[in-house]
Amino acid sequence: MKEISIGIDIGGTNSVIGIVDKHGTVICHDSILTANYKTPELFVEECAALINKLLKSIPEQCGLVGIGIGAPNGNYYKGTIEFAPNLKWKGIIEFVNIFKSHFDVPTFLTNDANAAALGELIYGDAKGMKDFVVVTLGTGLGSGFVINGNLVYGHDGFAGELGHTIVFPEKGRLCGCGRKGCLETYCSATGIVRTVIELMEESDEDSELRSIKKEKITSKLIAEAALRGDALANSAFDYTAKILGMKLADVVAITSPEAIFLFGGLAQSGDLILKPTKEYMEKYMLPIFKNKVKLLHSKLEGTTAAILGASALVWNEVSC
Amino acid sequence: MKEISIGIDIGGTNSVIGIVDKHGTVICHDSILTANYKTPELFVEECAALINKLLKSIPEQCGLVGIGIGAPNGNYYKGTIEFAPNLKWKGIIEFVNIFKSHFDVPTFLTNDANAAALGELIYGDAKGMKDFVVVTLGTGLGSGFVINGNLVYGHDGFAGELGHTIVFPEKGRLCGCGRKGCLETYCSATGIVRTVIELMEESDEDSELRSIKKEKITSKLIAEAALRGDALANSAFDYTAKILGMKLADVVAITSPEAIFLFGGLAQSGDLILKPTKEYMEKYMLPIFKNKVKLLHSKLEGTTAAILGASALVWNEVSC
Repeated sequence: MKEISIGIDIGGTNSVIGIVDKHGTVICHDSILTANYKTPELFVEECAALINKLLKSIPEQCGLVGIGIGAPNGNYYKGTIEFAPNLKWKGIIEFVNIFKSHFDVPTFLTNDANAAALGELIYGDAKGMKDFVVVTLGTGLGSGFVINGNLVYGHDGFAGELGHTIVFPEKGRLCGCGRKGCLETYCSATGIVRTVIELMEESDEDSELRSIKKEKITSKLIAEAALRGDALANSAFDYTAKILGMKLADVVAITSPEAIFLFGGLAQSGDLILKPTKEYMEKYMLPIFKNKVKLLHSKLEGTTAAILGASALVWNEVSC
Repeated sequence: MKEISIGIDIGGTNSVIGIVDKHGTVICHDSILTANYKTPELFVEECAALINKLLKSIPEQCGLVGIGIGAPNGNYYKGTIEFAPNLKWKGIIEFVNIFKSHFDVPTFLTNDANAAALGELIYGDAKGMKDFVVVTLGTGLGSGFVINGNLVYGHDGFAGELGHTIVFPEKGRLCGCGRKGCLETYCSATGIVRTVIELMEESDEDSELRSIKKEKITSKLIAEAALRGDALANSAFDYTAKILGMKLADVVAITSPEAIFLFGGLAQSGDLILKPTKEYMEKYMLPIFKNKVKLLHSKLEGTTAAILGASALVWNEVSC
């Protein structure tokens, strides 16, 4: 009997659910509006109905091995979502326990960046690597560290918060975490937008981005402008890459990975971000690590990438 | 038959060698002047003679389980010492292989900070911990990370270079590695001396340290002055602690350890460094980690600490 897993990615607005086989084929998937459900119990009830519908839609008979969930502030050890700023449900939510009242299969939960790292390990270009890092450049900056072949959860299950290491402690940008100068306020899809707005305010430099309302500027629009040769947009990429490259050099000094994968919205701007980040990373690298670490673009992009990452949690546990 | 290991710590000037049992008792030890030997082969020959002498001096019959070596720029995977700035012997030295021509027992090598972390794990207060960090504040700043119960060597065997993460990229102090603004140029026994000299040059503030020749100032003298209430010496500790605390908050965000141990020369100033570092660490900590991580003083201090760390390499490998 063919073995399958369920991958669920919980987002602030939207959550995606899919059925995935061992080879990383998303057999079918659907989505559900997270924000529509007042309680996690009601949300999971709807998820369960959707999963059962998806399971019935598969023609061949399959064995469900487990459920993997990627969620903001997801705690692997406790199976909880704790104080997630993007979700309606406040406090500590016993998410895995709620799921278990619907399905009698092993259920695992971690944060979305850790899930992305496992996706890279199980289905992606990190297959066979023992030491690598995945950096997700989305609304924030998430990271998943694999060391000695295992995902790093840390003592309390919350390791991997590279986005909240501090770049500018005193005068830095205000971060959603309440502190100042966190890496993710500079190096993320929203961070580069803040950079563009700052650059426009600080100078009179001409830019096609000036014709767009500030609140409508996105990292995608900045990338498109940069590709058309817009100097200000290119400066924003350079500034982002400089900070990211410097921090990745620090990551290398601490963990000495084989590769670092960039993933998520801003990473989709491809060489615009990858190339200068690599250059700055090498510039700031401790000599002993120079030209040793690959900086790669994750190939697990697209709408089903988050489902893949979450489902990888299952294979990573069950095949061990 | 009682099992014993040999622990060797290679220093730029002096190297120490000891026989250690499983419980961390240093049965006997001796030292040898590293700088006196033109080649690593001649040095190891002398080490071997010394080890044989030490072995013969033990009254009861013991079984030698293995040799552990802590060395600057020591590579665990390859058993090499690579481009160590403090040693006379240049390039890549096949140190374990040279040792193996003298002793037919398992021989392991890593850098001194990693050895300190293993010492803490096998004999110290980290016994039973799965996730912790040891930070050595000596001439430089070394670090050993234990994650999921294993020392982090990284892909190439050189992980744990926290001392070479960058604090001030452009205007920072020149580091021995050739770059600017590395953490160890601020937070180490030599770093705090540089801070005191800078503070004295920048102001006319009175200080008992002004009566000492610049090249004679040590972290120990600064600590003694601080304890006597010298304001400038206390400012130097505060400045050091602020930078260290901030960087340790970053370490926590990435690895989420149960505890961080401070070890080495500057750590011997006890609460003078520990207390403000803890305060700054908590100040700069991501809320989710606040008041969770212990900052402790390593109890494996003293002349035999380095021998213990190196010998722990043996028990860590052999008992696995």
